[in-house]
Amino acid sequence: MPAHTDQETTAPNRRGRGRRPAAEVRADALRAAGALLFDSGMGAFTIEAVAAKAGISKTTIYKWWPSRGALALDGYFHTVEPALTFPDSGDIEADLAAQLGAFVHLLTRTPAGRVITELIGQAQTDPDLAVALRTRYSDPRRRLAVEAMRRAQERGQLRADADCEALVDQLWGACYHRLLLSDLPLTEEFTANLLANVLHGAAPRTRPAP
Amino acid sequence: MPAHTDQETTAPNRRGRGRRPAAEVRADALRAAGALLFDSGMGAFTIEAVAAKAGISKTTIYKWWPSRGALALDGYFHTVEPALTFPDSGDIEADLAAQLGAFVHLLTRTPAGRVITELIGQAQTDPDLAVALRTRYSDPRRRLAVEAMRRAQERGQLRADADCEALVDQLWGACYHRLLLSDLPLTEEFTANLLANVLHGAAPRTRPAP
Repeated sequence: MPAHTDQETTAPNRRGRGRRPAAEVRADALRAAGALLFDSGMGAFTIEAVAAKAGISKTTIYKWWPSRGALALDGYFHTVEPALTFPDSGDIEADLAAQLGAFVHLLTRTPAGRVITELIGQAQTDPDLAVALRTRYSDPRRRLAVEAMRRAQERGQLRADADCEALVDQLWGACYHRLLLSDLPLTEEFTANLLANVLHGAAPRTRPAP
Repeated sequence: MPAHTDQETTAPNRRGRGRRPAAEVRADALRAAGALLFDSGMGAFTIEAVAAKAGISKTTIYKWWPSRGALALDGYFHTVEPALTFPDSGDIEADLAAQLGAFVHLLTRTPAGRVITELIGQAQTDPDLAVALRTRYSDPRRRLAVEAMRRAQERGQLRADADCEALVDQLWGACYHRLLLSDLPLTEEFTANLLANVLHGAAPRTRPAP
């Protein structure tokens, strides 16, 4: 088993003597990366530390992740993804409310808020981390949201001419703005008001429905 | 002139031999801070470098600014403020469109976009810089916007129950989100769509006006 030799002989938490399936090793690395990030932030986050924590070799990690930033973002996504599933009940207002509620809960009640602000912060002066953040986290999340809103447009629950990409910036982006740049709270009332503003408009309805 | 001795004797760009008015010295420091930030970013930004560039003493700078971060934020604000005046024409939609247009122009056509993303980024792991960013830049800007929207509520141009703080996150915050976390463009079409979404709503108007 040349490819996994040092994993098999030095792994502190190996589960058996045979070669483990690649998917299992990869999941271990992601779990270890997420745990390290949530425990200690980016300051202590190195390929070495993740390898040691997962009980696999650095070589194995480099097979899947080109950089520390890429591993950090995949570890973050792996950890938060279960909390961020996008419901598809057929009612876009209910689905957006549920998803935003889960998102804000994650940011305010778990270490995820501190971790993602640190990742976004460092990405502003680290081009590799910026690419990892975009391609491994924010672009896929944006895509899920836009797809859900496009389905709602097809059902007639959103106007056909509404800019769904802009709506992503006005819902999740508004939460990030408050998190990154203010000391105002991220509450359920806030996300309810975000939704009310973009769905029903802050201008008075002076004309009848067209 | 004991307080300004080294300023008066070593200043490379001093304009005369008498003690200059404090407001003039302060403005020089702000101009120098803004210029240094826009030319070189936070990497080269030190109290020493600003003092040298402005031709004033470090002691003088510390009279007004408690930290490098405070001076950087005031320098940033001093530089961008003329481009960010908030119009008050009596028509909130026109005023918001004009202000957002100026804001996006500043972020995309001048070094301000790179500078503010660096400041926001560093603020995520530098508590002093975070306080400076909030108290010296983003809170005052937020206040101006909220006041303009509250006046519009009094004129009946925005619903009385609209959450104006949330609208700030959904207009300027949406622009920051796109700047910090995506490679999508900040265009006039984008700001027009942001406004259309929050003013008129992305949901279809199925009921007549109340």
